Amino acid sequence: MKLITAVIKPHRLDDVKNALQAYGVHGITVTEASGYGRQRGHTEVYRGAEYQVDLVPKVRLEVVTDDDDAEELLEVIVKAARTGKIGDGKAWIVPVDSVVRVRTGERGPEAL
Amino acid sequence: MKLITAVIKPHRLDDVKNALQAYGVHGITVTEASGYGRQRGHTEVYRGAEYQVDLVPKVRLEVVTDDDDAEELLEVIVKAARTGKIGDGKAWIVPVDSVVRVRTGERGPEAL
Amino acid sequence: MKLITAVIKPHRLDDVKNALQAYGVHGITVTEASGYGRQRGHTEVYRGAEYQVDLVPKVRLEVVTDDDDAEELLEVIVKAARTGKIGDGKAWIVPVDSVVRVRTGERGPEAL
Ligand SMILES: Nc1ncnc2c1ncn2[C@@H]1O[C@H](COP(=O)(O)OP(=O)(O)OP(=O)(O)O)[C@@H](O)[C@H]1O
Ligand SMILES: Nc1ncnc2c1ncn2[C@@H]1O[C@H](COP(=O)(O)OP(=O)(O)OP(=O)(O)O)[C@@H](O)[C@H]1O
Ligand SMILES: Nc1ncnc2c1ncn2[C@@H]1O[C@H](COP(=O)(O)OP(=O)(O)OP(=O)(O)O)[C@@H](O)[C@H]1O
Ligand SMILES: [Mg+2]
Ligand SMILES: [Mg+2]
Ligand SMILES: [Mg+2]
Repeated sequence: MKLITAVIKPHRLDDVKNALQAYGVHGITVTEASGYGRQRGHTEVYRGAEYQVDLVPKVRLEVVTDDDDAEELLEVIVKAARTGKIGDGKAWIVPVDSVVRVRTGERGPEAL
Repeated sequence: MKLITAVIKPHRLDDVKNALQAYGVHGITVTEASGYGRQRGHTEVYRGAEYQVDLVPKVRLEVVTDDDDAEELLEVIVKAARTGKIGDGKAWIVPVDSVVRVRTGERGPEAL
Repeated sequence: MKLITAVIKPHRLDDVKNALQAYGVHGITVTEASGYGRQRGHTEVYRGAEYQVDLVPKVRLEVVTDDDDAEELLEVIVKAARTGKIGDGKAWIVPVDSVVRVRTGERGPEAL
């Protein structure tokens, strides 16, 4: 199993959720975050307002997934999140040893 | 070392904290999150109110732990978080290379 | 690639950001969190106020980095976050399989 984490522009969340649903992803976890990338100090535009502050609001998305789907799913997220402007975000994959569905105790792929 | 992440119903946090303390866990990190699982679109009940929205409030819990305790601790969290109703949550384990206690610089099991 | 996560005192964030910038780190993600460590129940001081509650406000910081920089960067964060008082925080490293810059689709070290 793998865990994909993506830090994206908040206004792209709906498109990313739709793309994930179309791909057949059954669950995601979302956290409010903030951050900066290479253009620290440069201006980023967020919902029509310019940010001069160095921490810009972002959304942090997590998806636990099968090994076989992980790289393709990463691409799905990245494409749906992309605007082509700086600050579009960063996404990464980490290995997962075990997953459990809390209600049933199911493990592995059945837990997703 | 391992990192356990659990996304649970917010009203189960106290029971999970108590179960972790009883197990001898010395530290946890908690983040507010939201998410959906397999029953996206289905109604989940949160603190007596029905949620029709697709992102339901959850609590995201992290515990860094010894290799030997990780699987048992995952079970402790899962059992304490369980209500038996849909939306109970998801929990997973990822490998950890290094851990440090910031105050002392201690590494490994001593850092926990 | 590696992912460093550090849970630190909120008032140390600026010093940690400056230390990371001085080191040449190009991006970070920040999330508000709360937690407790070994001294659960002990009093922690946060922005001049004493906290008797068991969950004390913390900042959760993430940095994806090259393998070669990870351990040194962990030390940079730990030193910048340290006050010498209890509750200074915990930091850990997990392995990363893949990283992508969303805007360009770049992978690996070029994505950072
Ligand atoms: N190395 C990193 N580690 C963790 N999070 C990062 C890292 N780099 C960027 N981020 C997160 O991703 C968000 C977006 O980064 P951003 O897209 O600006 O990266 P970038 O490399 O500067 O790319 P671009 O040139 O397209 O702006 C940041 O606000 C931050 O939350
Ligand atoms: N694959 C996943 N990746 C990341 N987070 C997930 C995933 N699936 C679920 N979650 C998180 O766990 C929370 C609870 O999920 P949920 O318990 O509804 O899962 P489920 O598989 O639908 O199980 P149930 O049938 O018991 O509802 C979600 O709100 C989301 O935050
Ligand atoms: N095992 C752990 N897993 C995940 N997060 C932890 C763990 N231990 C501590 N934390 C996080 O780090 C924060 C700071 O912990 P803290 O510095 O109090 O650890 P400690 O071991 O008690 O060290 P000290 O003796 O210096 O207080 C906690 O509020 C919590 O958010
Ligand atoms: Mg940028
Ligand atoms: Mg569900
Ligand atoms: Mg402590």
